[in-house]
Amino acid sequence: MAFHYPNGRRFVPAPTKPGARPAKQMSYSNRGKTLEDDLNESNQYYLSNGIAVIHKKPVPIQIVDVHYPQRSAAVIKEAYFKQASTTDYNGVYKGKYIDFEAKETGSHTSFPLKNFHEHQIEHMKSVVGQGGIAFVIMKFTAGEETFLMQSESLVQFWDRMLSGGRKSITKAEVESCSIKIPLGFQPRIDYIKAIDSIIS
Amino acid sequence: MAFHYPNGRRFVPAPTKPGARPAKQMSYSNRGKTLEDDLNESNQYYLSNGIAVIHKKPVPIQIVDVHYPQRSAAVIKEAYFKQASTTDYNGVYKGKYIDFEAKETGSHTSFPLKNFHEHQIEHMKSVVGQGGIAFVIMKFTAGEETFLMQSESLVQFWDRMLSGGRKSITKAEVESCSIKIPLGFQPRIDYIKAIDSIIS
Repeated sequence: MAFHYPNGRRFVPAPTKPGARPAKQMSYSNRGKTLEDDLNESNQYYLSNGIAVIHKKPVPIQIVDVHYPQRSAAVIKEAYFKQASTTDYNGVYKGKYIDFEAKETGSHTSFPLKNFHEHQIEHMKSVVGQGGIAFVIMKFTAGEETFLMQSESLVQFWDRMLSGGRKSITKAEVESCSIKIPLGFQPRIDYIKAIDSIIS
Repeated sequence: MAFHYPNGRRFVPAPTKPGARPAKQMSYSNRGKTLEDDLNESNQYYLSNGIAVIHKKPVPIQIVDVHYPQRSAAVIKEAYFKQASTTDYNGVYKGKYIDFEAKETGSHTSFPLKNFHEHQIEHMKSVVGQGGIAFVIMKFTAGEETFLMQSESLVQFWDRMLSGGRKSITKAEVESCSIKIPLGFQPRIDYIKAIDSIIS
């Protein structure tokens, strides 16, 4: 039986060497994919279909040494990862400024706040102050559950930690303060629908 | 006579070694600063004063090899510069999504379109399609003149080039299709005022 992509192109399995392990994308549950992969695919879907323009920002790097070999591209020979001063994703949807961070946890019971940095929280507050929409997409990888929590709620849990409270958000709190995003096929994480319910 | 920063802190000149060359920032005309430096300072000013939240995106890098020395930070040992798929700056101002590219030229007479890539033009079109504000900040370094040209005008000049026309925008065209941004002290490039005139 022939399978086809949604655009009509026929699915042709990639050739595999004898004895090779089955390709990761053949997995039925898609569990090998990270939240970042899924979001990048979803953003590409939104862009191609004129739904939204949202991109992941490049990882910030401190470049120390670059070589310029003759007749070749410049090679970075020494560089370090820098801490991001903002969130990872931003863009525009229906004229609204969208800004979010995406994090996953292996925990079944709570979402650790060490996933965030103080300046990211400050950044989200600034965004909301300018009328933008800031949130975090949280994934509990064990149960493949994904939630969108608005930054206003995240800030409350952050402040609770700063005033000596727990260093995580319980699963029950996440469920009661967030919009659950059902996993789909295309786009895989249809978070724009959750934004619609925030806007309306 | 004592000088003070706008926030009231007293200006203390940095100590210099005997025989050291005068520090760059002592230059009256500030000509040593690039457009990027000026924009980063302006964005920092906007952020600190709650006027707008606009950041430069990190340079996109393709990382090939990373070493993890014991008890030290990870070191990137081989990486390459990637072409950006979007513009360099974006953020939010009064609820509006702001997106722009900044380029300077040494030419006195025209602005070369080779400063832009096809996918940056496409990105700006997508942004405008979603109700965002996209533009380019152009600086003619010779005369220290800075202009804000909306992407709609840039696209017209781009399309003229694609249909066989000139590969640059004449200075006169820039002047007639753009908003001139006077150079100031703080912020150095007060482009938000130009955005105000676009919004209103």
